[in-house]
Amino acid sequence: MNFCPHCGSAEISKLIPAGDNRPRLVCGACTTIHYRNPKIVAGCLPVWEDKVLLCRRAIEPCYGLWNVPSGYLENGEGVEAGAIREVWEEAAAKVELTYLISLYNLEKINQIYLQFVGELVEGKFAVGEESLECQLFTEADIPWDEMAFTSSTFTIKRHFLDRRDGTQRLHRASYPTL
Amino acid sequence: MNFCPHCGSAEISKLIPAGDNRPRLVCGACTTIHYRNPKIVAGCLPVWEDKVLLCRRAIEPCYGLWNVPSGYLENGEGVEAGAIREVWEEAAAKVELTYLISLYNLEKINQIYLQFVGELVEGKFAVGEESLECQLFTEADIPWDEMAFTSSTFTIKRHFLDRRDGTQRLHRASYPTL
Repeated sequence: MNFCPHCGSAEISKLIPAGDNRPRLVCGACTTIHYRNPKIVAGCLPVWEDKVLLCRRAIEPCYGLWNVPSGYLENGEGVEAGAIREVWEEAAAKVELTYLISLYNLEKINQIYLQFVGELVEGKFAVGEESLECQLFTEADIPWDEMAFTSSTFTIKRHFLDRRDGTQRLHRASYPTL
Repeated sequence: MNFCPHCGSAEISKLIPAGDNRPRLVCGACTTIHYRNPKIVAGCLPVWEDKVLLCRRAIEPCYGLWNVPSGYLENGEGVEAGAIREVWEEAAAKVELTYLISLYNLEKINQIYLQFVGELVEGKFAVGEESLECQLFTEADIPWDEMAFTSSTFTIKRHFLDRRDGTQRLHRASYPTL
């Protein structure tokens, strides 16, 4: 932040406001405190029979690597709606959410992943705008060495674990847990 | 947003950028797109024996009403750490988190509540800076008509439900579910 979005002043300082205990961006002209907070990345692992649907990213970061369909939650949107939207955007697929499988903190980059498992409706999918390709993988075929993000690896592993155990658990972890 | 935080221009417009499908705040001078995303409100319902700890708010909004200790997640913080911090700030109490009990969407005000149940360590608490008072309540004594937020009512009800059933479930809903 170079300029105060409220008054336009360039007098932006990082300081601990009175009554607070963390440094904030504060405008020296209008005194507005500009808070910054983590973003939610909502996603869903689509499941069809014994396979899961992954997408190969057509966008940076991690262009060309595989991922669980996920993206920033939008204003006005609930987490479930965001997860369903991301599957549509990345894989042109509809899902019926089954359960929230992972809460994954990336504290250093201010992201909190919330990923569901969902049933891929009628097993149908195509290739969404943000993907190079989309593909169903059995556990044995997952391209573990070509995954875009640790959060995806975490969620996919937990899905197959839950399936073996016949449970539906929320798994919580922070980066760099796999 | 009156001025672009990047270049200081007042030419801020709400429009749908090329390749996007939602209106964004865009700077007409430097072309920066200013995304806005929901905030996470992290919290924890502290439990001691057959009681839960609630705090009466010393701050607006809802000054004087009761609440589950909760607040905005900070940059650099995981959801669990945020929930533990909020209990400390509001009730000067330590908790050991048991499980995530609720994901509660408030789409219209761009807030996503993530609240845990936690064990109140040694049953100890005081009154935090942001509270007028803190008090342990049995289910029969909960001040249902003086609750600050629907998210708190939702979480407290689900806690007593889970306890009766002997389960630890994640409950998901959107405002105004109670």
